[in-house]
Amino acid sequence: MQKSPLQIARSNYQPKMPVALQGFVAIKEGEKTQSVADQEEIKKLFPNTYGLPVISLVPGEKKAFPEMNVGVILSGGQAPGGHNVIAGLFDGLKQLNPNNKLYGFLNGPSGLIEGNYLELTSNIIDEYRNTGGFDIIGSGRTKLEETWQFDKGIEACKKLNIKAIVIIGGDDSNTNACVLAEYYQQKNAGIQVIGCPKTIDGDLKNAQIETSFGFDTACKVYSELIGNLQRDANSAKKYWHFIRLMGRSASHIALECALQAQPNICIISEEVEAKEMTLNDIVDQIVKVIVDRADAGLNFGTILIPEGLIEFIPAMRRLIAELNDLLANNEEFNSLESDDEKRQYVKAKLTHESSQLYRDLPKGIARQLTLDRDPHGNVMVSQIETEKLLIEMVAKKLAIMKGEGTYKGKFAALNHFFGYEGRCAIPSNFDADYCYSLGRTASWLIAEGKTGYMAIVQNLTTPANEWQAGGIPITMMMNMEKRAGKMKPVIQKALVDLEGEPFKYFASKRELWADAHTSYIYPGPIQYYGPSEVCDQPTRTLLLEKKR
Amino acid sequence: MQKSPLQIARSNYQPKMPVALQGFVAIKEGEKTQSVADQEEIKKLFPNTYGLPVISLVPGEKKAFPEMNVGVILSGGQAPGGHNVIAGLFDGLKQLNPNNKLYGFLNGPSGLIEGNYLELTSNIIDEYRNTGGFDIIGSGRTKLEETWQFDKGIEACKKLNIKAIVIIGGDDSNTNACVLAEYYQQKNAGIQVIGCPKTIDGDLKNAQIETSFGFDTACKVYSELIGNLQRDANSAKKYWHFIRLMGRSASHIALECALQAQPNICIISEEVEAKEMTLNDIVDQIVKVIVDRADAGLNFGTILIPEGLIEFIPAMRRLIAELNDLLANNEEFNSLESDDEKRQYVKAKLTHESSQLYRDLPKGIARQLTLDRDPHGNVMVSQIETEKLLIEMVAKKLAIMKGEGTYKGKFAALNHFFGYEGRCAIPSNFDADYCYSLGRTASWLIAEGKTGYMAIVQNLTTPANEWQAGGIPITMMMNMEKRAGKMKPVIQKALVDLEGEPFKYFASKRELWADAHTSYIYPGPIQYYGPSEVCDQPTRTLLLEKKR
Repeated sequence: MQKSPLQIARSNYQPKMPVALQGFVAIKEGEKTQSVADQEEIKKLFPNTYGLPVISLVPGEKKAFPEMNVGVILSGGQAPGGHNVIAGLFDGLKQLNPNNKLYGFLNGPSGLIEGNYLELTSNIIDEYRNTGGFDIIGSGRTKLEETWQFDKGIEACKKLNIKAIVIIGGDDSNTNACVLAEYYQQKNAGIQVIGCPKTIDGDLKNAQIETSFGFDTACKVYSELIGNLQRDANSAKKYWHFIRLMGRSASHIALECALQAQPNICIISEEVEAKEMTLNDIVDQIVKVIVDRADAGLNFGTILIPEGLIEFIPAMRRLIAELNDLLANNEEFNSLESDDEKRQYVKAKLTHESSQLYRDLPKGIARQLTLDRDPHGNVMVSQIETEKLLIEMVAKKLAIMKGEGTYKGKFAALNHFFGYEGRCAIPSNFDADYCYSLGRTASWLIAEGKTGYMAIVQNLTTPANEWQAGGIPITMMMNMEKRAGKMKPVIQKALVDLEGEPFKYFASKRELWADAHTSYIYPGPIQYYGPSEVCDQPTRTLLLEKKR
Repeated sequence: MQKSPLQIARSNYQPKMPVALQGFVAIKEGEKTQSVADQEEIKKLFPNTYGLPVISLVPGEKKAFPEMNVGVILSGGQAPGGHNVIAGLFDGLKQLNPNNKLYGFLNGPSGLIEGNYLELTSNIIDEYRNTGGFDIIGSGRTKLEETWQFDKGIEACKKLNIKAIVIIGGDDSNTNACVLAEYYQQKNAGIQVIGCPKTIDGDLKNAQIETSFGFDTACKVYSELIGNLQRDANSAKKYWHFIRLMGRSASHIALECALQAQPNICIISEEVEAKEMTLNDIVDQIVKVIVDRADAGLNFGTILIPEGLIEFIPAMRRLIAELNDLLANNEEFNSLESDDEKRQYVKAKLTHESSQLYRDLPKGIARQLTLDRDPHGNVMVSQIETEKLLIEMVAKKLAIMKGEGTYKGKFAALNHFFGYEGRCAIPSNFDADYCYSLGRTASWLIAEGKTGYMAIVQNLTTPANEWQAGGIPITMMMNMEKRAGKMKPVIQKALVDLEGEPFKYFASKRELWADAHTSYIYPGPIQYYGPSEVCDQPTRTLLLEKKR
């Protein structure tokens, strides 16, 4: 297999680790824990894995561990560093006992159910050290939720004599990991389950988990590109770049990129929702900045738009809900022939407010909402090109203002979507180190017989040797939420906290950044070598949250 | 102004230079030159700047130079390294005589005509060393072609006592630089003109110019992203990524990215033209690879598409030409009300072949060809989203094959366009060194009284201290070509040479790369520090052309 010079160089990188993980480890148990809310219900649902203590890993004495086999699963969307979690887990297991074996279940949780696996040998692991992607064993989106799946998992593990499973995933996958842990405890199956916090979206974090892995690298890739576009905008002086950023619901990615690159505008979905803003409010806000800059002779700029925006606009959410109700399996609608008839049909059936909004949307978007639907008849929200929607609406408003003489600039816009480019980038030093440490931590939690825990590493804004590795009971992060009409125990998703330091800093600066005087920062590409301040920095979000 | 850690680190980078430029320089004149073709006409048009000798810069004795002022212009689209040309020019001028001054004409050639300038002091220069973008003085697309413009230029130069102008631009801008040099010689204006080879497109190269600056950095940015998408494709295993790459006409960028990342498919416009391929031929070629990979269970991949493709498909070019003739200022057409009527009108008036092709195009594209037109009534070819056109046509064909049972895979496609992200990236070490050397070279050509020359640096695949700096008469690269109906002297544009080593290597490998066995390379982001093989490599195109 041919490799780039950087691939070759990176394969020799030795991730930095907390002191405790550099030798043998002892376990220090802290206080018993409670779930963040709904303690009674959660306790009832997780009698065996509720209330466990927080665990810290500290330097310990060398000791012998019996042989064991472990399985690992990658769940959900890719995030840079997944391969290093597996490499850390592998090295950790070999440190415990050179005869330990690591099996990778293939293509996500379905690999466990189907007993589809690959033994991960050092040859394979070495191929993937410090690389991006999840291709070592593949990932998948099958949800581990049902008892028959759990039982199939026992079969697969028994066949391979597997003592523990590590599930690398986001909030939902870790919720499921905990349900699985609880089930295996109840059944006395002899299989531990350990989770690892993955997602580029950054929405799996809380008092214990400082950040999910992959967020750092993905944001740095997007910020590189945003910085490049800003330099281009500032040079050509004729384009407004509307940049949509991946991140299914929370706006952490957009916010972090804004902190890194200081664009003229960044929309934060959580703020839109809190202020009950309409699409028109957002358009007005953008138009104001464009007009102000045009008055200063600057007909260019950058605007960051979080992918999930549409669903955070209350009126849009109501419209989409109405459309979903109205059109799913609606034979009357489906029997209509022309697009025009379909639109008329929809307009007549919507509530007054939604009908108005629907009418005001650009044609292409209205079409997407009504005609392009998923197999269940639902609007495919993630495929709506919000950046184009906003360009169209902004252009329309500016044209009116031009006619009225209140806008004298020139408006030319370019649209971008950055997402897939960042999910599988070569992990930054931060993510490479963090993930490798998570993997090693998981191996110790397994060795110590823990289950229903998530591996964590804290103190991440200090140099890696000062990081603190440990484990927290997954139940600790749970509350009860309505999912598909039923109350379920789930890990609380962390949206952007409008009272948190990262947002507050952004809010205090955005008028300055919108202003005539260019405040652009050009982060440049991720560096793996060179001065530490260039190649080892964590995200701005983390630094602000830790006030460093 | 806030800066990223990489910006701060890069501002201290000292570009590497050829030995000759490290001290004082002597000029070595080579053989008299001839234009590449049409020698008689070119000689007649350039009596003062034709037939000059090639110049090499070699180490020389320290000597004193009289004070002088120089002007510099950035012309056309941004390319990484432009700021370093200016920094090299500035440092070179200061080396010649500390009292020398450098003026930047603002916002491109129009700055010269309008006498709009900025004195570039060391404070300003230091802000922009090793940075991307053209924002130090801005760029513009005004063409310096007419006598009144040249005369205004004399006025502006006289006012600032400017002895020489350096024009940093692509093939057209350098052609114009030569016309300007000739005019100023004829007029005895006492103003020299020196060109510098800029363009990310890579189409300004020949026996003397090994590569234009910016091509290296831009291709590395795009290849980083392509590599990331490939890792994602190989992990998620469910998407075909259709990636359109900037590059107005030549396919050098697509080819270089293919050499760096080894995608499953890369279309080269020059080959499409040479083989007189139709749009359907291209679709068939893509479909074949998709079907073969699906048969091997691989329903994912990457396809690179050069931006200029459409105009290299002979039948499409004819259709576009017919549409341009038919619709420009056509009142009958403009008076038609509905889109349907317009389409019918067009279909009836086209030749049989074009009408057929027009009918077969996806609706959205046909619409773009007929309805969205520039102020002159011309089709806006560069705005046609070729990647979406191909996705639509490929999907249609695969659906038919699925019905026939000859295709059993799943096809889901994502589209990307990479362009603006690369034009203003922080220059790679290669471009930073190359550009700085070009700037220093230009200062020596000016000091030695040369005009109508382009600054060049050769031997670029060796370490920078072995590079050879010099100058070539711009007339040497010229031939006569028809432009807007008139024969004009122009620098030959370098398209991808189907007999050249880069294409031949690609052609010898592409079946392997298309194949089931993944050949993806993951170049990763540009590195500025670390091992030389990671951070100082030139493009694969250049290495293959030089057979290293």
